[in-house]
Amino acid sequence: MNERIPVGILGATGMVGQEFVNFLRGHPWFDLTWLGASDRSAGKSYREATSWRLGGVMPPGVGQIVVSESQPNGGPRLVFSAMDASVATEIERAFAAAGHIIVSNSRNHRMEEDVPLLVPEINADHLRLIQEQQRQRGWKGQIVTNPNCSTVVLAMALAPLKPFGIRRVIVTTMQAISGAGYPGVASMDINANVIPFIGGEEEKMERETQKILGEFTGVRVDPLQAKVSAQCNRVPVVDGHTLSVSVELENRPTHAEIIAAIRGWRGVPQQKGLPSAPPCPLIYMEENDRPQPRRDVERENGMAVFIGRLRTCPVLGYKFVALGHNTVRGAAGAAVLNAELMKSEGWLDK
Amino acid sequence: MNERIPVGILGATGMVGQEFVNFLRGHPWFDLTWLGASDRSAGKSYREATSWRLGGVMPPGVGQIVVSESQPNGGPRLVFSAMDASVATEIERAFAAAGHIIVSNSRNHRMEEDVPLLVPEINADHLRLIQEQQRQRGWKGQIVTNPNCSTVVLAMALAPLKPFGIRRVIVTTMQAISGAGYPGVASMDINANVIPFIGGEEEKMERETQKILGEFTGVRVDPLQAKVSAQCNRVPVVDGHTLSVSVELENRPTHAEIIAAIRGWRGVPQQKGLPSAPPCPLIYMEENDRPQPRRDVERENGMAVFIGRLRTCPVLGYKFVALGHNTVRGAAGAAVLNAELMKSEGWLDK
Amino acid sequence: MNERIPVGILGATGMVGQEFVNFLRGHPWFDLTWLGASDRSAGKSYREATSWRLGGVMPPGVGQIVVSESQPNGGPRLVFSAMDASVATEIERAFAAAGHIIVSNSRNHRMEEDVPLLVPEINADHLRLIQEQQRQRGWKGQIVTNPNCSTVVLAMALAPLKPFGIRRVIVTTMQAISGAGYPGVASMDINANVIPFIGGEEEKMERETQKILGEFTGVRVDPLQAKVSAQCNRVPVVDGHTLSVSVELENRPTHAEIIAAIRGWRGVPQQKGLPSAPPCPLIYMEENDRPQPRRDVERENGMAVFIGRLRTCPVLGYKFVALGHNTVRGAAGAAVLNAELMKSEGWLDK
Amino acid sequence: MNERIPVGILGATGMVGQEFVNFLRGHPWFDLTWLGASDRSAGKSYREATSWRLGGVMPPGVGQIVVSESQPNGGPRLVFSAMDASVATEIERAFAAAGHIIVSNSRNHRMEEDVPLLVPEINADHLRLIQEQQRQRGWKGQIVTNPNCSTVVLAMALAPLKPFGIRRVIVTTMQAISGAGYPGVASMDINANVIPFIGGEEEKMERETQKILGEFTGVRVDPLQAKVSAQCNRVPVVDGHTLSVSVELENRPTHAEIIAAIRGWRGVPQQKGLPSAPPCPLIYMEENDRPQPRRDVERENGMAVFIGRLRTCPVLGYKFVALGHNTVRGAAGAAVLNAELMKSEGWLDK
Repeated sequence: MNERIPVGILGATGMVGQEFVNFLRGHPWFDLTWLGASDRSAGKSYREATSWRLGGVMPPGVGQIVVSESQPNGGPRLVFSAMDASVATEIERAFAAAGHIIVSNSRNHRMEEDVPLLVPEINADHLRLIQEQQRQRGWKGQIVTNPNCSTVVLAMALAPLKPFGIRRVIVTTMQAISGAGYPGVASMDINANVIPFIGGEEEKMERETQKILGEFTGVRVDPLQAKVSAQCNRVPVVDGHTLSVSVELENRPTHAEIIAAIRGWRGVPQQKGLPSAPPCPLIYMEENDRPQPRRDVERENGMAVFIGRLRTCPVLGYKFVALGHNTVRGAAGAAVLNAELMKSEGWLDK
Repeated sequence: MNERIPVGILGATGMVGQEFVNFLRGHPWFDLTWLGASDRSAGKSYREATSWRLGGVMPPGVGQIVVSESQPNGGPRLVFSAMDASVATEIERAFAAAGHIIVSNSRNHRMEEDVPLLVPEINADHLRLIQEQQRQRGWKGQIVTNPNCSTVVLAMALAPLKPFGIRRVIVTTMQAISGAGYPGVASMDINANVIPFIGGEEEKMERETQKILGEFTGVRVDPLQAKVSAQCNRVPVVDGHTLSVSVELENRPTHAEIIAAIRGWRGVPQQKGLPSAPPCPLIYMEENDRPQPRRDVERENGMAVFIGRLRTCPVLGYKFVALGHNTVRGAAGAAVLNAELMKSEGWLDK
Repeated sequence: MNERIPVGILGATGMVGQEFVNFLRGHPWFDLTWLGASDRSAGKSYREATSWRLGGVMPPGVGQIVVSESQPNGGPRLVFSAMDASVATEIERAFAAAGHIIVSNSRNHRMEEDVPLLVPEINADHLRLIQEQQRQRGWKGQIVTNPNCSTVVLAMALAPLKPFGIRRVIVTTMQAISGAGYPGVASMDINANVIPFIGGEEEKMERETQKILGEFTGVRVDPLQAKVSAQCNRVPVVDGHTLSVSVELENRPTHAEIIAAIRGWRGVPQQKGLPSAPPCPLIYMEENDRPQPRRDVERENGMAVFIGRLRTCPVLGYKFVALGHNTVRGAAGAAVLNAELMKSEGWLDK
Repeated sequence: MNERIPVGILGATGMVGQEFVNFLRGHPWFDLTWLGASDRSAGKSYREATSWRLGGVMPPGVGQIVVSESQPNGGPRLVFSAMDASVATEIERAFAAAGHIIVSNSRNHRMEEDVPLLVPEINADHLRLIQEQQRQRGWKGQIVTNPNCSTVVLAMALAPLKPFGIRRVIVTTMQAISGAGYPGVASMDINANVIPFIGGEEEKMERETQKILGEFTGVRVDPLQAKVSAQCNRVPVVDGHTLSVSVELENRPTHAEIIAAIRGWRGVPQQKGLPSAPPCPLIYMEENDRPQPRRDVERENGMAVFIGRLRTCPVLGYKFVALGHNTVRGAAGAAVLNAELMKSEGWLDK
């Protein structure tokens, strides 16, 4: 791994784009060399083109990069997509057709049958959908995706329970404002308030979770047969989506068995020691009032999911709380881990 | 109704006590004449004894009342109890034994078999438990109670669904900080945060809901047989508990039938026109992002429950959002409505 | 006063427009009959054209009014302007030229020499600038304005001190998010944060205060000669601008004299008993930690200014805290009180 | 510097004590070996005795330390004091009398004539007050202190202006809730609110600033003769005190001269490269809406002060915004930097 791999970001000036810029700072494998944005920004330096919205200041070295148009020429082969859903479909396809590897955080292609929807600890084998994707679409490049920012928290919390036979899941989310981008949620809407609605979010959680936890058959993914019901709320928290989860498990494990399964759960990223992989992807907390977004979300570089309060649910059998970092494990960090997985499995060399 | 009835408040200097003082301001039937508190406050004027924590200033006329010890002598027959659970059991019993009518917001006696746990729109007939209570305990007085502040929101939202056959309920709450009293929740704990735990709250919601929706048999209340599971969270909202509810209904009504049942639901307080009764105890909102605590909780003087977003739950069949005012409908207003019900049914004259 | 006067609102669908709609609900003199907005909204019912952002729901009766284009024909003579500054200049002038009485909350004309910038308790006599305005511009109608939402709090707090000889004023504001309209301040910017900048606000406070407290000479207003320095900050508060004020007074009054001046201060609105006038426009609070926006801002219908913590400033001599409701006394309520003043002085009949 | 120096913390279980524990994690010079607390905690492990209130979890290795009584025997020579003001006076003196070096964050001794009140970049020479202190009190040990959490931000922002002749200063603070410890500010008091009062804070800022910026004469400190006036407010921010400052400077420098002075300002900690010293103790930001607490306070490990918006004040000549981390540069980090200064100047060896 002597040479760092040049990478680019589509939608680099938006808030998710900024999160990619932040997350890639000092990355041992990837070298950020290309930033694509709308025509309005193209030709300007990234510093000129961008109002930096994240904490602190823009990482050194990035501000001088001249922003390119979002067109598939000249950029590096590996490109992260932080594009808004309103434009991502066509541009991502154009890049993939032109031979680029698009590692996308956008929702547009997630549920297409031949597109991997990856959480590397859970379904690294779904990457092989790329072969089908390239065959069917005649692309030299490819598109792989990561889940919605609330879905990934649920999917990771459920993954170690899959051997116990997941039948039914009811989840209520309390989601951070950073999940809505910038300007995103108006302060007049969320200050000292709860908004019991996030457009499209419940449907995404219900369907994406089934696909992520599904089985790769060789040519497609058979979704998990469990029923999933989501209620999504916005709360005045900066970062971190908190979930109240009830789940029905066929095999009726004890609480101790579940906690052991959570704590012992590892995946390909841990086995291969991928740079962004947390040593323990799931952390079970014993305190009766944890996890909490403001106190826990930044731990483990935002890449772990925190679980607590496992107890008996009088209706479905088990209930617990889960927390994950929506802009790291739910966006930029998720995509970078996907790219690390692809590198480690040789997909970037094909 | 020519003469106003003198009433007192036990625990008058605490935050719930202050809410009683506020709610009784200008009450057409009840005249606040007596304020009981700890020995530390007794003998002082209410103004001296109290740090007013609510919005605005202390209602005129109350500040001059001299605070009494919490002992059953000299006070009016009808006494509201806003006492802390740590002391309520003995004091409430002593008052009831001495002939006082205790209309309590404290949790201590709610689940005792011979104590009515009232939501007047739902179970006005449970008041008749008083006869059993007086017979068994040899009291001339009595204790009646109102539910926990999150329970009342759930119970009222479920009440019109009871004819459809409620089988199973899963609820996740997002509760306001005012529910914890004063000083209550430390700002360091809840600022820009979620606390996924409220001590004892889940158990109260699960059991109290069953008792409230239960059937009075003549001597006792048979609890509703539905299973109820609650997950309770604290969020940085001032007033108003928001609930995400999933429910299974035996008769599989249409959404239109449910909304009609919600909108048409009335109880004894509406039929009798009790002073604190909201004209419509349940208000169904059509907007897809309502109800919201900051925007809706003060409507209808805080005495209605707001419901929205009825939709299909893939697991239990139906899901919706509910909101209620925890310090009004969930505390002081609930107790005052209970006393109004008792007055209107002649219990205060016995 | 048998017949209610028909009134309209320019910019009716925006957040300030909604505040006018709210404030005029049940007004004893003014009957809201006309709503003007952009071409995009014109022709729709107000309910269709408007996303209601305020607490509760749209007042009854308003939703059915068909929105008109913002053009000076057909509407009532008296029109409140809640227009955005980007369009207010031309449209307000067109209405005034066509004979309308424009009572504007927009900043555009405030500092023009022949336009009254009114706080009716302070400078009701400045209304006579209208004669000069009509003469110079050849208008049959007229434009009168109210101050910026933070200026009005400062000007009212200073007004009773004017007889003591105001020399220098330093003020730091902590302003509510509602002051920025909708969507206004992004929650990502203000959640658990302070933004130490509000565009143009400091200049407005410094200059408008001098004009409001200035002397009407018969043809113009000579601004108060005191120096004013403002630092303006946004804080995560919903309604209510809080000010830390230091002031130098030539006559060196005692604190008791100042408090007496504040408490005894009345103006034309109180003398005439105007419908929206608070009985006491300034309320001095003795508690050492008041006023506070969340607890005090809704008192007196949002029309009073609250003052507290008068004490010695080692630099300028006196310092204190002031609070006012930015969307009521600082916007809709201010303009309506201006119109009430004009009615009571016969200006609407000319 | 081969051997790490053993250090202790008095008041270790409180919130400031926890901040010391956090800040000392991995310190290159100091080895945390001793934790003192009240008798109630003594004998328990730190993990048992402490409810960890900070973000994340307790640093590894600390939880097993057995908590000692707060008595001067057995502990290391160098002890940080995070004690509550109600008990600090006697205990700190007892430790100093017994030969301990007390580096205290408590307010109790700050203003005593023979006690250094240090900001190492500003007044490292004030350390020599220790000689006077030991002589007068007959102590083998000593007490040195750091300023109040809001004072340090003001003093550091003013220090580079001292050569321009500081005459008068007016400051308004917007202070974070973490400044009040735990449980500290009740959420019912501060949620979506401003509290315009912090007990004793204004006096501390006014007097401590003068002492810190004063001149050491050889036996005492002559306070800066500038007048300072402070208004202190609590706002709903987690960490970081924001200050609006107006200042009068005798020499009337240009804005460019001031910014150059700020940016070029260094002190002994930078010259000696002390472990906790920020490379640039003052950072001037060009953006017109910065610094902001949530976005900037964690930069530079919380040890720098951020300044912005330098502009003309119509009253005092200059105004600007300053921000500092109240629990780091204003508490634990300040004390640790003091101890590093003492070590580097040989005071720990005496």
